[in-house]
Amino acid sequence: MPEQITLYTAKICPFAHRVELALAESKLGYNRFEIDLSKKPEWYAPKVNPASKVPAIAYGGPQVPPDQPSPDSTKLAESLILVEFVADLAPAAALLPADPVQRAQARFFIDTVSTKFLPAYMGPLARGESFEPFWAALDSLQALLPADKPFVVGDQYTAADIAITPFLARMEVSLKNDIGAYKAGEGTKAAEYFFESGRFARLVKYFDALKARESFKATFDADYIKEKYGARFAVIREQVQAAAAAKA
Amino acid sequence: MPEQITLYTAKICPFAHRVELALAESKLGYNRFEIDLSKKPEWYAPKVNPASKVPAIAYGGPQVPPDQPSPDSTKLAESLILVEFVADLAPAAALLPADPVQRAQARFFIDTVSTKFLPAYMGPLARGESFEPFWAALDSLQALLPADKPFVVGDQYTAADIAITPFLARMEVSLKNDIGAYKAGEGTKAAEYFFESGRFARLVKYFDALKARESFKATFDADYIKEKYGARFAVIREQVQAAAAAKA
Repeated sequence: MPEQITLYTAKICPFAHRVELALAESKLGYNRFEIDLSKKPEWYAPKVNPASKVPAIAYGGPQVPPDQPSPDSTKLAESLILVEFVADLAPAAALLPADPVQRAQARFFIDTVSTKFLPAYMGPLARGESFEPFWAALDSLQALLPADKPFVVGDQYTAADIAITPFLARMEVSLKNDIGAYKAGEGTKAAEYFFESGRFARLVKYFDALKARESFKATFDADYIKEKYGARFAVIREQVQAAAAAKA
Repeated sequence: MPEQITLYTAKICPFAHRVELALAESKLGYNRFEIDLSKKPEWYAPKVNPASKVPAIAYGGPQVPPDQPSPDSTKLAESLILVEFVADLAPAAALLPADPVQRAQARFFIDTVSTKFLPAYMGPLARGESFEPFWAALDSLQALLPADKPFVVGDQYTAADIAITPFLARMEVSLKNDIGAYKAGEGTKAAEYFFESGRFARLVKYFDALKARESFKATFDADYIKEKYGARFAVIREQVQAAAAAKA
């Protein structure tokens, strides 16, 4: 019998979403426990993840209610590590290519997401900074996509695609609904640029392939993200724009 | 016949050293090409690694002189990706544990090296800042070591051990020879604290196990590091300490 898997996650969190995608692709059974990030349960840090972040997995040990984690399960954290963990548990899902070169290429794409896309993404979204570095980061990602195959390493949907999916999905909701620290109107303008200018044609097509996955449809709730991000970023925008006005 | 492997590397560079360790452990044959980081060959960025950094690997394609790289080989970069690539090419070397939980634990250790150890290491060494955050980062690493086994995941030497080895080795040379941006004398004092205070007893024992590997002895030249770091950091120290004096 396979070991039990309990995923501690939050619908809002793109990092946690990666692991939900991997688990959905893997067909492994698991318990899903939603953590309210604005009010984390007291037992979470001491008993599951000392860093107090989602996602985390409790693996193995006895079947227990997720809010009473057993000391006898193994606790694992960090989204990319968990995605590779799920890939290792479910080789049939082929979330990592079998070929060493393709594995390295998948990991290089993931590294580009971590070191170029993510820092650039936070600029306009969370700090109201220029979109230019973000477009440049998207150029770097796009340059790694094959011309005539749907996914990063070809026809196979892998951990590389999982690494970027939650962020592109949240980006679309944010920009199209003008949710972000930037000035009112800049989000919708950026959405038009991203989807319509042609500069990101390959990336937009790739994004369509990502959204067509059943695992994506089963794990993404755009209305929920819109509502939660909308409330959170309204506050952030007010602070950021007030600070900018005070400076000017 | 296995594909050819050409490693572009530099003896000074701890990131490149990781890949040399992995290749030495793997017993794969490879061509080693030293890149002078202070005077990189013009063909290096366009033909091998657009980021113009070491390490990089040219894999497969025809046998060519390393300074005339073929467009028909696959070019791969980023030290941790290359270590996993070598692990994938040489499964017999068991550089990654077979067990998914142990693989995740190895990757969590590597993540701690990247996100906690490395930033903290640069503080005192390159900017003359306090050692306290560095000691705290070493506490985090030490806490991940098993009490009664030599390596991160137990008896097996893996990618996790490879990830930290070059940095601890360079740290020892730097501190014991008082090489760094910090004030004269602070390095030797820090070396004494690290090796003798007892706070890092487990880590020091681990470091001894790392240094005992044949792969380490074959790839590390302490005198060379001492000479190169000594010259480089004498300049950095002068600048950092002059700036600090001007501020005071």
